[in-house]
Amino acid sequence: MRDKKDALKEKLYTIIFETDTPAGKAFDILLIVAILSNTILIIAESVDKILKAYGFWILILGWLFLFIFAVEYILRIFLSENKKSYIFSFFGIIDLLAILPVFLGFVFPQLRFLVVIRVLRLLRLFSILKMGRYVDESSHLLRALRASRAKITVFLFTIFFIIIIVGSMMYVIEGPENDFDNIPESMYWAIVTVSTVGYGDISPQTPIGKFISSMLMIIGYGILAVPTGIISHELAHTSMINKGKVRTCSNCKKESNTDEDMFCSKCGTPLNNKK
Amino acid sequence: MRDKKDALKEKLYTIIFETDTPAGKAFDILLIVAILSNTILIIAESVDKILKAYGFWILILGWLFLFIFAVEYILRIFLSENKKSYIFSFFGIIDLLAILPVFLGFVFPQLRFLVVIRVLRLLRLFSILKMGRYVDESSHLLRALRASRAKITVFLFTIFFIIIIVGSMMYVIEGPENDFDNIPESMYWAIVTVSTVGYGDISPQTPIGKFISSMLMIIGYGILAVPTGIISHELAHTSMINKGKVRTCSNCKKESNTDEDMFCSKCGTPLNNKK
Amino acid sequence: MRDKKDALKEKLYTIIFETDTPAGKAFDILLIVAILSNTILIIAESVDKILKAYGFWILILGWLFLFIFAVEYILRIFLSENKKSYIFSFFGIIDLLAILPVFLGFVFPQLRFLVVIRVLRLLRLFSILKMGRYVDESSHLLRALRASRAKITVFLFTIFFIIIIVGSMMYVIEGPENDFDNIPESMYWAIVTVSTVGYGDISPQTPIGKFISSMLMIIGYGILAVPTGIISHELAHTSMINKGKVRTCSNCKKESNTDEDMFCSKCGTPLNNKK
Amino acid sequence: MRDKKDALKEKLYTIIFETDTPAGKAFDILLIVAILSNTILIIAESVDKILKAYGFWILILGWLFLFIFAVEYILRIFLSENKKSYIFSFFGIIDLLAILPVFLGFVFPQLRFLVVIRVLRLLRLFSILKMGRYVDESSHLLRALRASRAKITVFLFTIFFIIIIVGSMMYVIEGPENDFDNIPESMYWAIVTVSTVGYGDISPQTPIGKFISSMLMIIGYGILAVPTGIISHELAHTSMINKGKVRTCSNCKKESNTDEDMFCSKCGTPLNNKK
Repeated sequence: MRDKKDALKEKLYTIIFETDTPAGKAFDILLIVAILSNTILIIAESVDKILKAYGFWILILGWLFLFIFAVEYILRIFLSENKKSYIFSFFGIIDLLAILPVFLGFVFPQLRFLVVIRVLRLLRLFSILKMGRYVDESSHLLRALRASRAKITVFLFTIFFIIIIVGSMMYVIEGPENDFDNIPESMYWAIVTVSTVGYGDISPQTPIGKFISSMLMIIGYGILAVPTGIISHELAHTSMINKGKVRTCSNCKKESNTDEDMFCSKCGTPLNNKK
Repeated sequence: MRDKKDALKEKLYTIIFETDTPAGKAFDILLIVAILSNTILIIAESVDKILKAYGFWILILGWLFLFIFAVEYILRIFLSENKKSYIFSFFGIIDLLAILPVFLGFVFPQLRFLVVIRVLRLLRLFSILKMGRYVDESSHLLRALRASRAKITVFLFTIFFIIIIVGSMMYVIEGPENDFDNIPESMYWAIVTVSTVGYGDISPQTPIGKFISSMLMIIGYGILAVPTGIISHELAHTSMINKGKVRTCSNCKKESNTDEDMFCSKCGTPLNNKK
Repeated sequence: MRDKKDALKEKLYTIIFETDTPAGKAFDILLIVAILSNTILIIAESVDKILKAYGFWILILGWLFLFIFAVEYILRIFLSENKKSYIFSFFGIIDLLAILPVFLGFVFPQLRFLVVIRVLRLLRLFSILKMGRYVDESSHLLRALRASRAKITVFLFTIFFIIIIVGSMMYVIEGPENDFDNIPESMYWAIVTVSTVGYGDISPQTPIGKFISSMLMIIGYGILAVPTGIISHELAHTSMINKGKVRTCSNCKKESNTDEDMFCSKCGTPLNNKK
Repeated sequence: MRDKKDALKEKLYTIIFETDTPAGKAFDILLIVAILSNTILIIAESVDKILKAYGFWILILGWLFLFIFAVEYILRIFLSENKKSYIFSFFGIIDLLAILPVFLGFVFPQLRFLVVIRVLRLLRLFSILKMGRYVDESSHLLRALRASRAKITVFLFTIFFIIIIVGSMMYVIEGPENDFDNIPESMYWAIVTVSTVGYGDISPQTPIGKFISSMLMIIGYGILAVPTGIISHELAHTSMINKGKVRTCSNCKKESNTDEDMFCSKCGTPLNNKK
């Protein structure tokens, strides 16, 4: 009896957590289809016309999807050997967040739309479909971003100072009579301007306000160039590391930049080509 | 009799498909002039004042151009040895699309303006005028884009997730009373914002909505930097490949980075300089 | 008598065309001051309040500046040995355009403001003040732009096709009832959108129009990356040429990429280091 | 008595100016907390609702912070050996500007918000928290910007000419009846357009005005690419210098580009590796 139960558990584990068996693959593809159609359903539900025409079916399908995801979540906990590590893993939290808002929706109906976060479960798609190349590229991009973390922090601090100071100046200059109601509002305007979005819901009216805005835009221009420069520089660098073109000598720790080198140009130790 | 017909067919083929003879070149230049003047005509037709003043002539010329392009299309089919391959080729489809909307225009008058797609026939201009350099550069740009396909896919997926999640959040926060009528509308707003277009037809009104928008703009800022970095990195790389600076050793498959190398630096096999 | 006249002519020539003598330098600096104050005067004249308060003085000063620039223009023609080459040179034309609009202003008063083109005369400032470094950098930037001419042409053609086709589609979809009055207007909207300016004076109203706009924005995003990539790649390349790092072997025409090379790596001819 | 006073002065100096002792560190952290909470207080004060609800406490806290910063400023002057050099140093001026607007606020109440400049005192945070890495990266970024100073000046001049000339043209074409009230206003519009902010508070109405705007946007597009290209090129270059990869031979002044070189490739002098 116990063996039978264990065998069932093992089989379920293979289906849900692994992707090598046909059943496992079928389950994963079904899950992707479910997530995608559920996302479309949630988006459609928010459109008044569609809700009025198909409200009943949307309701039914919504509960069905909830049921599927809830059962899946419980199974995943039940089948995990280390339950805690699953529950507090990135995907464990996403899986829970994909269910919770439905219950919050009983109290604040609007919040039920937040189940759209389920779409993040698609991130599993990368590992499921063995889209190795995309995972590689993502990690390449992430590594470039991480490598330029310090530069980007400096950049964000600069933006932060500019926004607080220009925001306050514009509040003093333009004031509530020109829609710069308070400093937070002015700071929002400064962000809208420096990022070149420019909605135009708030815009300077006084000559001196227009002059300061103009300065901010031209500076914003130059500032926009900085992260681009950082990232394109970093991409080139990590790409060289990625391709094994930057290798470290095992003897003297000197870095070699090119594939061409067979021996360390400093101490003569043979380099191992990792490509 | 048959020979005469064949000779005519061959002559026509030379004129229409080839560009080496004076007649062929004249035909091609006439075609370019026809396409350009036709495009201007269609654009002019949409302007009420012009249509009222010159409606009769626009009508006549419109039919004339249709006749020219239809005859040309039929001749091209008739003269092609492999008719199917022409009809389903890129230019074959464009040639058909350049005629069809006129007939659709009988049922839905507005659709007649879609014949503007004829302008794409100008793409033939590149091969006609032997603008080799531009073709080279296009293929260089296309190769750079293709090489960064995986990176760009990752980038588009990231944008896709951000737009769905921020769009839904803003719908919950702002709601229909602040013009965020439904999730698709909110997603449209998110795209308008993250791409820094910022029409201002929809803009956040609540403090929390403005705060989330500000975050989105600053993130959009950084995101904007990623494709630029990718493409400028890829352009530099494909440019090196393009110029024959990256060559592969025929013996050991080692890549050489510079024109300077005459022999593979790993195994001594002479490299063939493709430049 | 004649000698005296010639001596005067020569002296004037030295003052006006040359900058090595103290008098020549003084003249040039006076000219810069005159151009700058005149530009400010024209800008000020357009402001109603200022015109009402100081109209008389603005009028007097305006005629004074006209007199100065006209006398200078006549002197320049009179003193040039090759009068034709001066008149049709870049600066000769600018000098004339700096005077003409005043007379056009008698017929169409608004046109008098076009004398603001006088500001372009400041370009002489670079050569006057011997700002060699800036001239160097300008020519570096221009060379980078010129080197990527073919790529930029391909890019502008792509934009041109996108704008015509998307513009026409949006005219068909949205139509005059949603401010897309005609195809030129739609094309203007497409340019405003693809360049991420986004005034919001025209914006899509129908769901399908919003969807196409969203696609256009995401594409515009990627397109924005192309010229940046081109220019940053080209700057790096021309910078290497600039610094004498790319040299051509006088014997076999092979290009060398680095300062390090003393001999052509292909044929052994000594390279001349131009740095 | 004097010794005691001197000892106290020395102790205070250690606390306020140095960060190595526990007391010194505690003082610095308290200062950061004070600056941050004061900034939040000023921002909150500008919001009407908050001011009405907590006006009394905001007033009390505002005076408290003023007292703290004033006492600190006086102490800093009193403790500095070279008082003048502190008062006119960058941080000395910021420290003063952080106090002054309160008194200006007695005359012009709005100006009291300018004390927000206190936030700049946070810049001390970098040296206080020994965030060496960020200081390095800032100086790397600053060096890249400084290295491209001449290029950026050329770029700003180009923008300046375009804005004056296009601004004046648009004033002539559109005129006050289309919100282009005067040339400064038109120039403001040109900056809003060329920086792709595009508020839409002023936008062209006439066909010819729309055509010129379109040209400006497409040019603005290309112009946007220039500073990005400059900075990403310069970052790569200064990064190489930074990492000691560009070294100058002490004998023949030849620059070496790579870490690999142990000897000058021109004259054989051993290179000192600064990495």
